[in-house]
Amino acid sequence: LQRIRRTLGNGIEAPGLRDDAAVLDVPGGGPLVVSVDSVVEGVHIDLGLCSPGDVGWKALMGALSDLAAMGARPVGALVALCVPESTGDGAVTLGVMEGVAAASRETACPIVGGDVSGGGVLMVAVTVLGTVEGGTAVPRHGARPDDVIFVTGPCGGSAAGLRVLRSRAGDAPADGSLAAAYRRPRARLADGATARLAGAHAMIDVSDGLALDLHRLADASGVGFALDAVPVAEGATLEEALGGGEDYELAVVIGPGDVEGYRARCAAAGLRVPSRIGVVRTDPAERRLGGEELDRLGWQHALG
Amino acid sequence: LQRIRRTLGNGIEAPGLRDDAAVLDVPGGGPLVVSVDSVVEGVHIDLGLCSPGDVGWKALMGALSDLAAMGARPVGALVALCVPESTGDGAVTLGVMEGVAAASRETACPIVGGDVSGGGVLMVAVTVLGTVEGGTAVPRHGARPDDVIFVTGPCGGSAAGLRVLRSRAGDAPADGSLAAAYRRPRARLADGATARLAGAHAMIDVSDGLALDLHRLADASGVGFALDAVPVAEGATLEEALGGGEDYELAVVIGPGDVEGYRARCAAAGLRVPSRIGVVRTDPAERRLGGEELDRLGWQHALG
Repeated sequence: LQRIRRTLGNGIEAPGLRDDAAVLDVPGGGPLVVSVDSVVEGVHIDLGLCSPGDVGWKALMGALSDLAAMGARPVGALVALCVPESTGDGAVTLGVMEGVAAASRETACPIVGGDVSGGGVLMVAVTVLGTVEGGTAVPRHGARPDDVIFVTGPCGGSAAGLRVLRSRAGDAPADGSLAAAYRRPRARLADGATARLAGAHAMIDVSDGLALDLHRLADASGVGFALDAVPVAEGATLEEALGGGEDYELAVVIGPGDVEGYRARCAAAGLRVPSRIGVVRTDPAERRLGGEELDRLGWQHALG
Repeated sequence: LQRIRRTLGNGIEAPGLRDDAAVLDVPGGGPLVVSVDSVVEGVHIDLGLCSPGDVGWKALMGALSDLAAMGARPVGALVALCVPESTGDGAVTLGVMEGVAAASRETACPIVGGDVSGGGVLMVAVTVLGTVEGGTAVPRHGARPDDVIFVTGPCGGSAAGLRVLRSRAGDAPADGSLAAAYRRPRARLADGATARLAGAHAMIDVSDGLALDLHRLADASGVGFALDAVPVAEGATLEEALGGGEDYELAVVIGPGDVEGYRARCAAAGLRVPSRIGVVRTDPAERRLGGEELDRLGWQHALG
């Protein structure tokens, strides 16, 4: 990734590759928050475990989660879809688009552009555009010593759902909340916008694993952290909660003086109660859960 | 495509799938012109005939051509890259990104986001964002009877370049302007912006073939056309000029009273002289070149 950044040279806006999303100043307009995310069959998803509709849903929600982590509200998405030529009847294409449409309705994010190609594997690349409406997007790098760390909900549900789906016998039904956590996760857009309005200093979505993403936030901010709790989704293990990934909860870092206001805003908005999981430390080398060092558990991208 | 549009239902902004790009109103900001375009190995490109750098260049330029056709100026692009896992040394990824970076510098369009995945085939999906800075984007559907039709440059060069590359013996060198027309086409951003400022009623890029794209513009506008000239690139055939595609010239439709102003603006901006190729007709069934009916020659997308 470093080499790619250097290759792009002056063309690249560094924040776009550092935060969950980039902030773009449009002449004559306000700042625009933009991000792109891809879902590739065999890498991120397995069509034996989820439907084309699930793929479309996850692709849009995964991209929107990057906006949520900046505290942005979506204003539109563009979808590039590549489908294997063997599915020339269009069933996979339509299935993916139905999932995209369902996620679009759920989040009130209109689809404003699209491109469909043949190709060797199913791939969906989604670009999302968002706005902070006069405010400032929340970066990864703003955490300060003594800030309080929250997470917007229990983690590990998606990884546990994947485990359940992989282990089920033949055609056994796979409904239930764990399978849904894997197949139909929800971007935490309202939670992110509320945290931004409450004055959050830093945010990240924990889609690559709570532990790894907290390390990244701490790396970007030049700080450490001490965790004393990890909210684990019902049916998930602690390891899945820390390193499973594909949960779209947000880690929210907020000044101690803003904690009560944050909780009150979440309650007023009818959101789930965020879990306090720890505090930010001055020493960047201090990265612990209870008395032990916290490993960088999570999904390390091949090229990341 | 019709079924996809229906599937997306209320989520979709119809102009996004009708024009070259969609126009998005960002709350608190001006209109944003957005489009997404993909390049897939084996469908749009052949790595035996062009380098990874060419692929990156063409992917960004192809997407930017959609902005050019709306008269928009680029403000940023996001690149989703999927590379076969066998190329784990990153050489293809870096090559593609070098081509993207070169096209980014050429057009002053910064890359503001990116995503790199493994996958079965090389695929690059590029989303571009642009602005018309207080003006109005030029649609496909605005052509009116008696308007004059221009094209910004000779056509068929890309198709002729592909023919030359396919026919060369073994390692024979493939420099020359035809090969460059295929490998390193240029989006006509300045030409599009100039035509917009001159009051163009309708525009389209001729990337799927001059004939087919003129038919589409006429379909969208509910009009016909009568052509009396086709500018053919040196070394290309008339058939390549009409149906070869991958030329990023623009077809510009402008009111008869604005023709002289358009020519003057092109000259003042140092642009190539646009070629007058015909006029718009009232009868939507009249679609001819000289005395003959013009077929819909060009690249018909499998799913279009």
